[in-house]
Amino acid sequence: MLQTSVLRSRTARALNPEAKGAARGVNLLLTALIILNVAAAILETVEAIHGRYAGAFRAFERFSITVFSLEYLLRLWSCTSGTTFAARSRDRALYVVTPLALIDLAAIVPAFIPGDGLDLRFVRAVRLLRLARSLKLVRYTDALRTLGAVLRDKRAELALTLFVAVIVLVCAAGGIYFAEREAQPDAFSSIPAAMWWAVTTLTTVGYGDVYPITVLGKLFGAVVAVTGVGLFALPTGILAGGFAEEMQRRRVPRVCPHCGKALVT
Amino acid sequence: MLQTSVLRSRTARALNPEAKGAARGVNLLLTALIILNVAAAILETVEAIHGRYAGAFRAFERFSITVFSLEYLLRLWSCTSGTTFAARSRDRALYVVTPLALIDLAAIVPAFIPGDGLDLRFVRAVRLLRLARSLKLVRYTDALRTLGAVLRDKRAELALTLFVAVIVLVCAAGGIYFAEREAQPDAFSSIPAAMWWAVTTLTTVGYGDVYPITVLGKLFGAVVAVTGVGLFALPTGILAGGFAEEMQRRRVPRVCPHCGKALVT
Amino acid sequence: MLQTSVLRSRTARALNPEAKGAARGVNLLLTALIILNVAAAILETVEAIHGRYAGAFRAFERFSITVFSLEYLLRLWSCTSGTTFAARSRDRALYVVTPLALIDLAAIVPAFIPGDGLDLRFVRAVRLLRLARSLKLVRYTDALRTLGAVLRDKRAELALTLFVAVIVLVCAAGGIYFAEREAQPDAFSSIPAAMWWAVTTLTTVGYGDVYPITVLGKLFGAVVAVTGVGLFALPTGILAGGFAEEMQRRRVPRVCPHCGKALVT
Amino acid sequence: MLQTSVLRSRTARALNPEAKGAARGVNLLLTALIILNVAAAILETVEAIHGRYAGAFRAFERFSITVFSLEYLLRLWSCTSGTTFAARSRDRALYVVTPLALIDLAAIVPAFIPGDGLDLRFVRAVRLLRLARSLKLVRYTDALRTLGAVLRDKRAELALTLFVAVIVLVCAAGGIYFAEREAQPDAFSSIPAAMWWAVTTLTTVGYGDVYPITVLGKLFGAVVAVTGVGLFALPTGILAGGFAEEMQRRRVPRVCPHCGKALVT
Repeated sequence: MLQTSVLRSRTARALNPEAKGAARGVNLLLTALIILNVAAAILETVEAIHGRYAGAFRAFERFSITVFSLEYLLRLWSCTSGTTFAARSRDRALYVVTPLALIDLAAIVPAFIPGDGLDLRFVRAVRLLRLARSLKLVRYTDALRTLGAVLRDKRAELALTLFVAVIVLVCAAGGIYFAEREAQPDAFSSIPAAMWWAVTTLTTVGYGDVYPITVLGKLFGAVVAVTGVGLFALPTGILAGGFAEEMQRRRVPRVCPHCGKALVT
Repeated sequence: MLQTSVLRSRTARALNPEAKGAARGVNLLLTALIILNVAAAILETVEAIHGRYAGAFRAFERFSITVFSLEYLLRLWSCTSGTTFAARSRDRALYVVTPLALIDLAAIVPAFIPGDGLDLRFVRAVRLLRLARSLKLVRYTDALRTLGAVLRDKRAELALTLFVAVIVLVCAAGGIYFAEREAQPDAFSSIPAAMWWAVTTLTTVGYGDVYPITVLGKLFGAVVAVTGVGLFALPTGILAGGFAEEMQRRRVPRVCPHCGKALVT
Repeated sequence: MLQTSVLRSRTARALNPEAKGAARGVNLLLTALIILNVAAAILETVEAIHGRYAGAFRAFERFSITVFSLEYLLRLWSCTSGTTFAARSRDRALYVVTPLALIDLAAIVPAFIPGDGLDLRFVRAVRLLRLARSLKLVRYTDALRTLGAVLRDKRAELALTLFVAVIVLVCAAGGIYFAEREAQPDAFSSIPAAMWWAVTTLTTVGYGDVYPITVLGKLFGAVVAVTGVGLFALPTGILAGGFAEEMQRRRVPRVCPHCGKALVT
Repeated sequence: MLQTSVLRSRTARALNPEAKGAARGVNLLLTALIILNVAAAILETVEAIHGRYAGAFRAFERFSITVFSLEYLLRLWSCTSGTTFAARSRDRALYVVTPLALIDLAAIVPAFIPGDGLDLRFVRAVRLLRLARSLKLVRYTDALRTLGAVLRDKRAELALTLFVAVIVLVCAAGGIYFAEREAQPDAFSSIPAAMWWAVTTLTTVGYGDVYPITVLGKLFGAVVAVTGVGLFALPTGILAGGFAEEMQRRRVPRVCPHCGKALVT
């Protein structure tokens, strides 16, 4: 029983991207394999390349799926440090539904389904963000921590901005639908259809596939476009304030320089 | 007389999105009904869906209008805590012209006008912002307060930016009109027509339905596009400074709570 | 001699947008006349409106030009408080070349040139920014001062950003010219022609009238588009930092709270 | 031997953009020559201008190449202050691979290759950023230092943002490829082809040459466009926080210069 738990904790350590020594090699190899996998998934869609190296791609895919499946199972097995079976089962169930574990699963599962299904290997790219910590770039890990802290600290404000954006989106789509549905019954056939225009305008992308042509529609469209600038300014302002705050928090003394007592900041 | 005023204040409490206990249920139900209403207003415009469930949509609309009309009347009745009829009448008249009450009214009234008029039910979505407080998410209410405080604190600066934007818009439209009216008499037929180009360029939306084609027009258009970046930067910078200020005002202790001496931050 | 100088200083006071009492009326009337003038200049370009009210427009224009010419001459006469003729002449010459005086002149002069020349009345809109101070909105004047202080304080950084933008623009236009000139000899006929593409891409306007179609051009175009995001971020970041600084400067004590001596900040 | 080293250090001083006295003239002349060169490289691509002044352009190019080649050789010779030949060789090899030296070389070399090759003279424009210091504008040099300090201080965060952007780009291109490849086999023929759409959408350029047309593609495209706003907000927020921090670091006195006590800011 002891041997199993030792093996389990060693496996967990080896798969931790911040591991040191030999375990670091495991993470660097996994990182390299993911990069190659993403590159393969991208290049394989190019007809000219796929046609010539179809065999090599298939062999590499089989190898990768084997490694990643093994990795997934080992992570699943080693994710728990609970001692009873029940506790371990619960921990594993919780682990399976974490975003990172779901991404891992989504990238493996399609390969086991017969037929020419959806290829989600490129989703693995997301894991690079985490695995890059194994590169031991101090500045990178530091920047990741700052970014994470600011995003976590401001998540309510950012979610509120997104909520406001959704409400503005609904009103923009509704308004343009009533203004343009008669002049352009194809492009603005319904509010869901008008939402496509609203998104491309509020984000200032503006492809130009749909745009208002009536005077009322252009007036309303102008208001929506200006509102879009405001919806750009809000998250940027929130993040800017968040970064300024985070920087200042680090310079704030943790103990009073006069009396030496701890300061709760 | 006492009973009426007690009933009135209880009604007001029950309709307050920050209410506790049983009253909270009222607000959650209203929130849910608004979400369903907005969803119905959106989906009903899709021909395929409307055709199949026309009856259900009509019944749901009748039910919603009844509830919202009742809600509106109850809010109108309970909005006042004045004791004399004159004072109550004045308070009610003031309540009716508040932005939120006008939105409520705009969302109900079209249903009572015969014929296939303008459907403004989606406008109700705006109320979600306020009702969401009934969800009792502490972080949400906090974020709403921060956002409100910054927008209120910086309203003069933001209004000035909008004023500058309007002046820039007029000059941009006037300039491009004189530069392009001969080459493109249709697209730039007048300054109001040229304003559509100016808005899509200053907000960097750029649909591509109108754009300068003469050398002078392109030179001027380039200056306008660069000015647009500046008009983006101003509100963002103002909001960023506002959020940084708001955060600092809240967090940083100015004196040591133990010894009372000033802290350098 | 005394009477002239008294009259002169009174005229100067009456034309000062921050004047009080009766003089304030003068400024409010001028503000209203400018707004009406800008509106007329805009509406007159609409064929349908101009055709119907041509006479009224002409009469209003004649009246406005008389008022504005008088205003210009009075400003020119009263701008100086020097006592000798030589000093006054020099002051006036200096006044004539100030940006605001040049805008005033540009808006009057075309009316005196015969023929259907350039109509620059809408340029007068710029003066509204300054005259709006006569509205005595304390918050507006405060916001104008904050905005002015930040722009003045950060002018070197903003000019540097513009300088960097020009260099990036030249390199972007040069690069895309060599990448696309063979595939699209019309759209990318020369580097100056390619600059139009570079401006619409760097400012993220993206009309879609010109875009790269070769693989090399698209790769280069992608790099330019991403650089555009950076060129957006720089002025915004500078202004945000400037506003945060300006706010903090106002809260910084001007005297030491311990010893009461003045602090140079 | 001494004479050589004296001559070398004098040459190095004369080519230093921050030099004073006579050496400053050298830098101003070089700056002017670069500006003229960039202007010539731009204008020469205009057929009408090139046709008329072909001879003048050729003569000016020959003169410029001579000066810049001489300048390059002098910089290469004088870049080292090492005393032994080996040390000097190593220093020179290191100098040759610095970004600025590579730009210099790229701008000279094509002129020595026969045939109508790539003309990279406009790349010289980048050097203006550095040479502009010879204009002795104190504010300019200050702004350059602030900008450099913030970019250096935040380089890890900005690199992380770019890394996140690349991952998002891969996922966006992969997703749209699977959503649109059947409806638009030409525009979304492969993931690399779909990346062009992803870049124009994430940077909110939106030319409109490719855009999703299926419902699934539009839904996914909307998510990508909104994510693009977030990718805009991140670097802007980081830079804003950086500028606020940099300004605070410089300005705010931490102790009273008179009594030495800590100041609350």
